[in-house]
Amino acid sequence: MSRVLVTGATGFIGNRTLEPLLAAGYEVHALARREVRVPEVSAHPVDLVRDPAATRSLLEELAPDALLHLAWYAEPGRFWTAPENLSWVGASLGLLRAFAQAGGRRVVMAGTCAEYDWSHELAREHDTPLTPSTLYGAAKNATRLVSESFAAQEGLSLAWGRVFFLYGPGEHEARLVPSVARSLLAGQPARTTAGTQVRDFMHVADVARAFAELLDSDVTGAVNIASGNPRALRELIEAVGRASGRLELLELGALAERPGEPDRLIADARRLRDEVGFVPSMDLEQGVAETVRWWSEQPLPPVG
Amino acid sequence: MSRVLVTGATGFIGNRTLEPLLAAGYEVHALARREVRVPEVSAHPVDLVRDPAATRSLLEELAPDALLHLAWYAEPGRFWTAPENLSWVGASLGLLRAFAQAGGRRVVMAGTCAEYDWSHELAREHDTPLTPSTLYGAAKNATRLVSESFAAQEGLSLAWGRVFFLYGPGEHEARLVPSVARSLLAGQPARTTAGTQVRDFMHVADVARAFAELLDSDVTGAVNIASGNPRALRELIEAVGRASGRLELLELGALAERPGEPDRLIADARRLRDEVGFVPSMDLEQGVAETVRWWSEQPLPPVG
Repeated sequence: MSRVLVTGATGFIGNRTLEPLLAAGYEVHALARREVRVPEVSAHPVDLVRDPAATRSLLEELAPDALLHLAWYAEPGRFWTAPENLSWVGASLGLLRAFAQAGGRRVVMAGTCAEYDWSHELAREHDTPLTPSTLYGAAKNATRLVSESFAAQEGLSLAWGRVFFLYGPGEHEARLVPSVARSLLAGQPARTTAGTQVRDFMHVADVARAFAELLDSDVTGAVNIASGNPRALRELIEAVGRASGRLELLELGALAERPGEPDRLIADARRLRDEVGFVPSMDLEQGVAETVRWWSEQPLPPVG
Repeated sequence: MSRVLVTGATGFIGNRTLEPLLAAGYEVHALARREVRVPEVSAHPVDLVRDPAATRSLLEELAPDALLHLAWYAEPGRFWTAPENLSWVGASLGLLRAFAQAGGRRVVMAGTCAEYDWSHELAREHDTPLTPSTLYGAAKNATRLVSESFAAQEGLSLAWGRVFFLYGPGEHEARLVPSVARSLLAGQPARTTAGTQVRDFMHVADVARAFAELLDSDVTGAVNIASGNPRALRELIEAVGRASGRLELLELGALAERPGEPDRLIADARRLRDEVGFVPSMDLEQGVAETVRWWSEQPLPPVG
């Protein structure tokens, strides 16, 4: 049985990778500072950034065959520019080095669509320029460059999953889908931008399963973790409206667009589909309906 | 008076930056694990890689205006592929973050010609592709990408000096100039390759002074630290032969070329000359003569 260590295992994506990895037959170890609610998973409370020595000891002791590295600084809004991005470059490379030293063979790390030059509409793994405009994108891109060079040299098999736009149950409340859903579910109007931007949206459960399947494949290099089905942001918002049964409370266009947002950012998802063989379980309407149902079961928020 | 912190201050380049920085009027602090032999310089024995907390404390306490970051893993031969390169990415970014947090304004970091794609003969800062073929090159390039993004965001002034091929007194004995010089000075034959490769060589004292002048300028971005005067490797070797007075003991072509070495790697040195205003103090012949004189004053080696 192959042993995998998952970092960020209690995070938005990470906590949904555990079941698919168990189902694929892995012995799953989670590196997480909070409680992991899957009994078959062994949790190890190690702080990757603050305690590199403990990270090295754990890797030496576990000697995992595979590593799924999802942990990163993820505070909504702040993560684009946070100086913590610098620490996560170092922590990620230290983890990779310790993993290789402990005899690990297969690595998947989480990248981001923010590595691409967003002046190009189509993000393709092998030919869209990688000139990130944010510190977050630059830090992820730099981590990839060193990791790929190190993996090639050491004979590690490494894939780099670039995450696009995701949503799902348990997303941070400050983000778009939760804030719209919670307003509508509370019977309050939800004011949004016109939502003309076209993006690639994927339900977090599909994103997580895509990571698990990528890890379990022998595909290497960058792979877009995306649906390949571009939709306007307003379609996502309207799907929330319909799923809440309160479409009439939506005020699309009430807020001004944020400057600097590209009109279209479309993922080429053929590597994920054709090489990894991943098939999403939900389209946008199904995924949003499932998400809104989850929010409807949470305590109602105080909406201002 | 401006306060500068120099890392790698006892290294091959670093120890020659201290005098020019003092001469330019800086209060010079050295981050070094060994003794710094310049009395006007305050030394701080901090281990950048192993003790990030001590690094942060030192930066907070000193609050330097400027940072000259030269420290890196430099073991001859090993440094191209050493996993220590991964640790130095993290250590360098941690240092930069601490410097910014302590109010620092001006940074110069040492990069390398190995960041360039060596299939291009001419290495120009702004248009030669940056696709390093070694882990060392990838690690330096990645450090630059994150550092430049962070500096732009935080309003730091940052320059990145790309070092080419250097030589000089005190170079590691395993390297070309010392090994040839010491053989010839001992009256032993020196066997070398044919040395047809064309490179940009610079005496380490000039490299160091170029870094000091770059720091003291307001030039930002990548700057080749190079003479702009391409020479064949055999010219360097023959200069060692002449300076030793034992040209006849040279056996050029006795060793096979190392595979994978590019024929020509030439630096565009115009930014350093025209924007920084740097003028080398020695040409190749003068620099080699000075270096061989220094080796002639060292105890003779046992040559096998």
